[in-house]
Amino acid sequence: MEQQISLITLGVADVQRARAFYQRLGWEGQETDETVFIQTGGIALVLWGRDKLALDCGVTDYQATGFSGVVLAHNVRSEAEVDDVIATAEGAGATVTRRPAKTFYGGYAGFFTDLDGHVWEIAHNPGFPLADDGSISIPEFSKA
Amino acid sequence: MEQQISLITLGVADVQRARAFYQRLGWEGQETDETVFIQTGGIALVLWGRDKLALDCGVTDYQATGFSGVVLAHNVRSEAEVDDVIATAEGAGATVTRRPAKTFYGGYAGFFTDLDGHVWEIAHNPGFPLADDGSISIPEFSKA
Repeated sequence: MEQQISLITLGVADVQRARAFYQRLGWEGQETDETVFIQTGGIALVLWGRDKLALDCGVTDYQATGFSGVVLAHNVRSEAEVDDVIATAEGAGATVTRRPAKTFYGGYAGFFTDLDGHVWEIAHNPGFPLADDGSISIPEFSKA
Repeated sequence: MEQQISLITLGVADVQRARAFYQRLGWEGQETDETVFIQTGGIALVLWGRDKLALDCGVTDYQATGFSGVVLAHNVRSEAEVDDVIATAEGAGATVTRRPAKTFYGGYAGFFTDLDGHVWEIAHNPGFPLADDGSISIPEFSKA
């Protein structure tokens, strides 16, 4: 099994509302069959109705609310960019769950939940190199 | 905001148990501070204690169980590979929620939940080109 993730699908209550939210963050996708596909680096972020997603997965217990247990992080190149993205997200209706601040790992980050409660961390982490194409590389901890 | 996801963190009950599960799928990572970082393409899959993760995000309602509303997909190059990965995952303790079968979009996929209930789709989707490096590209739907 290659170490590769191909798609991340977020179950949402209203696909158009979710699409509009991510558009306000500057993320454009394509839609087909009430499903939005947003190309992010080498993987796709997908917005799809939560009920349909649960059914498709064969998961029946899909009424849970609260923390999903999954956090997506978007790393940026400066602390100012963290502030900017958090402000943009808040303007688009996100709930800021932690205001940007220094982190325990030596970076700077803020958190928000999108309109469906999915959690995002917006971080500047000098310890995790960010390539020109936006991909990140985990450093070798043993050499740290 | 670049269209880029940097990390996906899965909250887990037991980091060592979760790490061992992903190792049985063939995924190797590095550990620091009771956190496992697995390089997958240009992003990192992270395994971290669910309580710590919720606290870090400023999310207080973290007792939810059931469907997280997030599905990670791992696309492979053949139907036989789908069967193989699902069998390997099941052997490692995963719960298969849907046996591999033809999908509505013309592919072939199976689903499982990992030891903490995180949902994975293992799919062969001829419509979504998979590059040599494992990255996928969303086709232009308007040309389909």
